[in-house]
Amino acid sequence: MLTLFHYPLSSPSRFIRLILEEYGVATNLIEEHEWAKRHEFLALNPAGHLPVLLAEQEVPLSGAIVIYEYLDETRGSLRQEKNFFPNNPLDRAEVRRLNDWFLHKFENEATHHIVRERIYKREMPLTIGGGAPNSQILRSARANIPPHMNYLNWLCASRDWLIGAELSYADLAAAASISVLDFLGEIDWEQYSAAQEWYMRIKSRPSFRPLLMDRIRGIVPSPHYADLDF
Amino acid sequence: MLTLFHYPLSSPSRFIRLILEEYGVATNLIEEHEWAKRHEFLALNPAGHLPVLLAEQEVPLSGAIVIYEYLDETRGSLRQEKNFFPNNPLDRAEVRRLNDWFLHKFENEATHHIVRERIYKREMPLTIGGGAPNSQILRSARANIPPHMNYLNWLCASRDWLIGAELSYADLAAAASISVLDFLGEIDWEQYSAAQEWYMRIKSRPSFRPLLMDRIRGIVPSPHYADLDF
Repeated sequence: MLTLFHYPLSSPSRFIRLILEEYGVATNLIEEHEWAKRHEFLALNPAGHLPVLLAEQEVPLSGAIVIYEYLDETRGSLRQEKNFFPNNPLDRAEVRRLNDWFLHKFENEATHHIVRERIYKREMPLTIGGGAPNSQILRSARANIPPHMNYLNWLCASRDWLIGAELSYADLAAAASISVLDFLGEIDWEQYSAAQEWYMRIKSRPSFRPLLMDRIRGIVPSPHYADLDF
Repeated sequence: MLTLFHYPLSSPSRFIRLILEEYGVATNLIEEHEWAKRHEFLALNPAGHLPVLLAEQEVPLSGAIVIYEYLDETRGSLRQEKNFFPNNPLDRAEVRRLNDWFLHKFENEATHHIVRERIYKREMPLTIGGGAPNSQILRSARANIPPHMNYLNWLCASRDWLIGAELSYADLAAAASISVLDFLGEIDWEQYSAAQEWYMRIKSRPSFRPLLMDRIRGIVPSPHYADLDF
């Protein structure tokens, strides 16, 4: 069985969990806090970020981009159905661009800061930056959400799935990212009806169920978080 | 002919230039300043970062990761010789991990800040942050170089190329990144003899020649920058 080091509110971790569920790969999940810089975890991934997959022969694979390309090469590309990469190299490039957008750009400009301020800092010791959220950081991270949501809404308004008629890795990456902000009640859905309709469709997939069951101690998810028809 | 929007001292731009040279793909180079946020450039890549390749049918591909996977799928994987991805999926994952390390982690912790403070700020208008380098940013970016160089040195000491006996994309990514710092005289090579020997070998490749000819107005490259036997 494979092992995934993850955190429930980490977008790149959720992206990999969705793929593993879609492919039906039995996986042992271990919750890890990046900020703790645990020695044994750094030995697996010197860069210190999540997720890390212990693949075949317990070889550690670090980071969502490395892991999903590996899962595609070893699981996805062998399948007739559930091919989350389109056949055309230019379309695959567009999938990779959107993955990078949601897993890195959106993450670095908004999601990561919000999770750090609202969630991580509750558990981090004061000596390494724990404590009350910094309202200035929170405010500027929140101000970065609407441009990204407008972009997502625009993509969703013109096609069924983010890069066309078929669901791709880009939908899973975007949904992983959005689901973290939705858990925290940070998305004002009324403004983004095309994105909302897309998100309702993707969150109804069986692969999404384990994510909708995630709970964080002391935090109540937004009322519609696990509602499939919100 | 393809077109590449690049900057001479951008590591991810250099990485793609090396690959295009290795594959002998004739390319029209256009120098672009990320900080200028040129309207026509943002229309090609809303994320605003370099490099951007205008591929077949003028389709813009944004970011080094997207571009090299595309070039591999359309140029590299068709070739018998010069296959810069190993055959084993676990080895390919290691190549992708190191690419991410040098193009993102090293870049975000050191190279990008040094180039911004020493080069970009000389040309940027004062209104958007131009002016004299911030010595505190420069100092902390420089302090991040030795851990990365030690890691590279350790990799180079145990094998011919970064992931084993064959040159891979990881060598090109690492060399692109190192070459920017070497241009600026930021690497104290005496401490890293295994990395130096590796860098001498890779910079002797014909694909490296155009990079060694790069000059930036008002900046003299380090004395050994273009020296193949330094």
